[in-house]
Amino acid sequence: MRAFVLRGNGEVGIMEKAVPEPGPNDAVVRTTAAMVCTTDVHTKRGAMTVAPDVTLGHEAVGVVHALGEAVDGLDVGQRVAVSGVTPCFECETCQRGFTSQCGGVILGAARFTTRGDGNMAEYFLVGHARANLAPIPDDLSDHQALYATDMLSTGFVAAEHAGLDFGETVAVFAQGAVGLSATIGCRLRGAGLIIAVESLPPRQELARRFGADVIVDHTRCDPVARILELTDGQGVDAAIEALGSRRTWEATFRVTKPGGRISNVGYHGEDPEPLEIPLEPFGYGMSDKQVYAGLNRGGRDWLNRIFRLMRTGKVDPTPMTTHEFGFDDIVKAFWMMEFKEDGIIKPLIHFG
Amino acid sequence: MRAFVLRGNGEVGIMEKAVPEPGPNDAVVRTTAAMVCTTDVHTKRGAMTVAPDVTLGHEAVGVVHALGEAVDGLDVGQRVAVSGVTPCFECETCQRGFTSQCGGVILGAARFTTRGDGNMAEYFLVGHARANLAPIPDDLSDHQALYATDMLSTGFVAAEHAGLDFGETVAVFAQGAVGLSATIGCRLRGAGLIIAVESLPPRQELARRFGADVIVDHTRCDPVARILELTDGQGVDAAIEALGSRRTWEATFRVTKPGGRISNVGYHGEDPEPLEIPLEPFGYGMSDKQVYAGLNRGGRDWLNRIFRLMRTGKVDPTPMTTHEFGFDDIVKAFWMMEFKEDGIIKPLIHFG
Amino acid sequence: MRAFVLRGNGEVGIMEKAVPEPGPNDAVVRTTAAMVCTTDVHTKRGAMTVAPDVTLGHEAVGVVHALGEAVDGLDVGQRVAVSGVTPCFECETCQRGFTSQCGGVILGAARFTTRGDGNMAEYFLVGHARANLAPIPDDLSDHQALYATDMLSTGFVAAEHAGLDFGETVAVFAQGAVGLSATIGCRLRGAGLIIAVESLPPRQELARRFGADVIVDHTRCDPVARILELTDGQGVDAAIEALGSRRTWEATFRVTKPGGRISNVGYHGEDPEPLEIPLEPFGYGMSDKQVYAGLNRGGRDWLNRIFRLMRTGKVDPTPMTTHEFGFDDIVKAFWMMEFKEDGIIKPLIHFG
Amino acid sequence: MRAFVLRGNGEVGIMEKAVPEPGPNDAVVRTTAAMVCTTDVHTKRGAMTVAPDVTLGHEAVGVVHALGEAVDGLDVGQRVAVSGVTPCFECETCQRGFTSQCGGVILGAARFTTRGDGNMAEYFLVGHARANLAPIPDDLSDHQALYATDMLSTGFVAAEHAGLDFGETVAVFAQGAVGLSATIGCRLRGAGLIIAVESLPPRQELARRFGADVIVDHTRCDPVARILELTDGQGVDAAIEALGSRRTWEATFRVTKPGGRISNVGYHGEDPEPLEIPLEPFGYGMSDKQVYAGLNRGGRDWLNRIFRLMRTGKVDPTPMTTHEFGFDDIVKAFWMMEFKEDGIIKPLIHFG
Repeated sequence: MRAFVLRGNGEVGIMEKAVPEPGPNDAVVRTTAAMVCTTDVHTKRGAMTVAPDVTLGHEAVGVVHALGEAVDGLDVGQRVAVSGVTPCFECETCQRGFTSQCGGVILGAARFTTRGDGNMAEYFLVGHARANLAPIPDDLSDHQALYATDMLSTGFVAAEHAGLDFGETVAVFAQGAVGLSATIGCRLRGAGLIIAVESLPPRQELARRFGADVIVDHTRCDPVARILELTDGQGVDAAIEALGSRRTWEATFRVTKPGGRISNVGYHGEDPEPLEIPLEPFGYGMSDKQVYAGLNRGGRDWLNRIFRLMRTGKVDPTPMTTHEFGFDDIVKAFWMMEFKEDGIIKPLIHFG
Repeated sequence: MRAFVLRGNGEVGIMEKAVPEPGPNDAVVRTTAAMVCTTDVHTKRGAMTVAPDVTLGHEAVGVVHALGEAVDGLDVGQRVAVSGVTPCFECETCQRGFTSQCGGVILGAARFTTRGDGNMAEYFLVGHARANLAPIPDDLSDHQALYATDMLSTGFVAAEHAGLDFGETVAVFAQGAVGLSATIGCRLRGAGLIIAVESLPPRQELARRFGADVIVDHTRCDPVARILELTDGQGVDAAIEALGSRRTWEATFRVTKPGGRISNVGYHGEDPEPLEIPLEPFGYGMSDKQVYAGLNRGGRDWLNRIFRLMRTGKVDPTPMTTHEFGFDDIVKAFWMMEFKEDGIIKPLIHFG
Repeated sequence: MRAFVLRGNGEVGIMEKAVPEPGPNDAVVRTTAAMVCTTDVHTKRGAMTVAPDVTLGHEAVGVVHALGEAVDGLDVGQRVAVSGVTPCFECETCQRGFTSQCGGVILGAARFTTRGDGNMAEYFLVGHARANLAPIPDDLSDHQALYATDMLSTGFVAAEHAGLDFGETVAVFAQGAVGLSATIGCRLRGAGLIIAVESLPPRQELARRFGADVIVDHTRCDPVARILELTDGQGVDAAIEALGSRRTWEATFRVTKPGGRISNVGYHGEDPEPLEIPLEPFGYGMSDKQVYAGLNRGGRDWLNRIFRLMRTGKVDPTPMTTHEFGFDDIVKAFWMMEFKEDGIIKPLIHFG
Repeated sequence: MRAFVLRGNGEVGIMEKAVPEPGPNDAVVRTTAAMVCTTDVHTKRGAMTVAPDVTLGHEAVGVVHALGEAVDGLDVGQRVAVSGVTPCFECETCQRGFTSQCGGVILGAARFTTRGDGNMAEYFLVGHARANLAPIPDDLSDHQALYATDMLSTGFVAAEHAGLDFGETVAVFAQGAVGLSATIGCRLRGAGLIIAVESLPPRQELARRFGADVIVDHTRCDPVARILELTDGQGVDAAIEALGSRRTWEATFRVTKPGGRISNVGYHGEDPEPLEIPLEPFGYGMSDKQVYAGLNRGGRDWLNRIFRLMRTGKVDPTPMTTHEFGFDDIVKAFWMMEFKEDGIIKPLIHFG
């Protein structure tokens, strides 16, 4: 089978690998569609140490090709989606609900690429298959289901950690695919005023379509001052960091009310310096502000719930897909994501 | 001034009363619009003991007429809304967050009519004015603001107590004005499948418009069987009782999954018998099911948040208003509510 | 091997069975100690339908005898405890946190006896072994560890569902082993006043020792009136039902404040009539009272946390053990539990 | 009357002031006992801008001397305690539960000294008296009640924000009076292992007495390494910062598990640099770690609940009092607190 890999020399490309064999609790999925994620770009740039020739990718759907002997409740041939993180659900950390940190290891459930091959290949292996394979309902396309594996699941977790109550105010920093998903998530949690910070017009337009009430273009104004102005000087009840930048991180503290929640889903691994919290807006440690450092939680229940929102028409994330490619052109798709060419947000990769 | 009262003989009518005088922490509001609530009908029918010639009503908006000497932050002449419950926010019970039960007394914050005059009068008194008067923003009509005082605030509390997570399933029993508001609330909290139980076509139509995905007409099928069928035999994650009937109360236990939440906002005071919980669907007391007996929480923050949802266009409850009257015709409006004439849902009463 | 079974004719006794063989994710444990639970007595009396000659029991500890091929992280020969409920942790219901209701089935994780053999035998089978086997630390005895499998885990869940904040008041109805454990749990959650309802002097004494501040003997006074008096007429913040009686269930509503929490862990399957909620103390459905119908949650993380409380000396439940027997005398132990002979609370059964 | 003030020249001393007069919702209390807080020392050192000749102090109890005309439910002559923060409970921020940030202003409820006179004077004024005056039960001494006003209330809030479940592990950094109170709070919330970081033997001894299982002396070992070792390399479930130092703040991230909670109650205003979060233990923003920046919440319900814990003997904080003075010697008491002379922890000041 063919796999899209990161070679030891730091270059990406397609190479031939053996189709994986399932262990007792595993499944092997024949891939039908996948999407490239900015995290793949981070990986290529060395954000984490990975094995040479590791397969990239963690957003894929397909058809069950083979099942381990101890996996019940699933059938070969079934269409399935798998989350970008695949917790065991059995260890102490998973039993406490922190499934992203499976095994008590930071980002422990982020297995694809990080702890073995990713899933941008013609076939891929999934551990803890009973817990992680979600059959795709007939009324959902592969394209829709793909969004549940990472973008919506991460964006919705961001909204969840923002702890929104009916009618509260929220600012979402950056409207890439995760930020846009967070905007959808905030709308679904009943936010009263959703402020999206973004400078690129196509993303601004999607943000509005997905539920943002106001767009703040940080290239044209001071976003902190503008958000305070939009909230009569009070600040927002919650702020979401969906970019992974030190400036937006610090801004979340400056735009939130006392008692505000800061929900981070941006990856802050590019810059080696510690993150900084500005003292005054943090009330010198006594502001009742709360910070949550979050990640997609994974698992088939979470996928099913996101599927349901798409099935009843409450969410349609597919307008985020700006480009489509065959697997043969995946290097080009990756390159476009790396350099954000042609206004790309998410590229859909068709297999076979 | 004129007030709409319940006389000692059980009849309703208009009578002349003195304009109230504010104590130090009170306000007097000149009423501009009000709505009749089914609770007023319950009161007329003797659901609770009230003073003779008490003024009815607890859904009203108006203009500040007079302020007590200790009330700051408000101005005479300002347009204001007041919730149907008016907690003190200062007693131990309020400090614990159970503001509806102000003073540690069941329904203690339900002061209008129950503990003094209601607000279906040309002027009305509001205690704890700083905590309970919410200025109405210029971009909201009195008509819209009125819905925040009771219907939306109660319906949203119902949705909140249903503890909905992204994409969960919920059944709302009855689509009167509170049930319809609960349906809106469930949509705002990100429910994935909203099942509304209702037989009257105009209410069914509003339910769809407000977010119900499926309507179950309990006069044409067994609603419990139908809801189980709609959820592949699993049951819903949450059920809301918005009617106050023993049959729907029991149904909430039968249609919920293990781990399901039952959120009650129906008033069960018409039938003197205890409420019954069917044993098997309750898991003999071990089903992880949870029950919340709820009521509107009151207060200006809650009003402000509901206002925000209307201001940004996320909620428009005014289609629930089926009829309009002048204050002179309030007896007729009340009579129509009592007998549910002409498909009435909510009647809007204009003052002066 | 020998097993303590419930024969088809309703009699209990010891019979010979084959030592179980583990499937890929199972473990077989050689039993070293066990305890009889009142639930076993309920089962004998027909509370649930079980297979003929089923092994009774769900409170046991032992030594790993054999492991399925897919079970890692455990070793043959290791001392282990297993909770009375053994969730899979992988299904949607477990992923939502309702592990007691594994598979979306009421009490679905209550597998011992109900869905196969129990563990009052010389060897027993445990499914989902990775998630359910907790190694017993060297500094804990089998005797101590046994209490974590059911009594403390259920009693602590009861305290958790009571939602206690610092210094709140709570009434615990009945001080059998679960009620006593709930009393310990309330103390550990920072309750300010713990009222235990119990008439038997030895249990009253244990209740005091475990943290009860006041004992109410319901045979000498009206417990509802007494609890209201002890709380200056306000009622308690929370009440725990640890008996499974209609009278105590109803009392929990009468003794709680508006906003109070009712935490049920009693089994209400003996009387076929529905449970009743008295209307007035329930505020006709609007009292902000909350009910949780709970059960032990299971899993090795939960066992580990209870172990930790015993290891640091914060909890010692062993004074609840009133009697000890060898496995040969288990019929006698069971008979004493059935008829509550000789002030029995928990009998400890030694194996081999 | 005499008041202990901070003069414009930065010196402290006693000066004569007029006895305050109550507004409609205020009370004036005649002080009977008070305690000096480290925050008073911060204030003297210029941590916040205060009015010249402002009275210091925010920990005092006394007897009601005069009541505003609109204050009901209280009597002149009653013994009362007042929390160090006095929220209005009526504004939107208080209605949301963030009472420390009253008025939407950071630390807005910290009125004593910061927004007017403090209470280390023979008489002091309390606003929002109905919400903030808690009668002291006859069975509690002034000495005990004083601890509820700030130390226990802040320490317990710290434990609450640590989000402890049964049997979890927690590290408390620094065992001054707030840290010791947090240790008591962790014990009351059912922590399974409480690790206290402290180098001074008398404080270590109190920590043990109040519930710490292990003491880590950071002057004799690397506390991060030691805490990881004590938790088998996993880290603690929660860490409390009760000092206000950059080093301990950073350590809280290094000693917590993925999914861990960091509860800050230390004041970080002495060093003007931003607080730093080390990236790797924060999982680059994706560790499921949570931070809460907390403060005493105030209000009479909170005081009552802490009183209850002392009345039933579950908490006795008075061993923290190392020194006693008459009001005449308050300058000496203050000076000892400033320079931490003679192992001082809390000095009790007797009035009149």
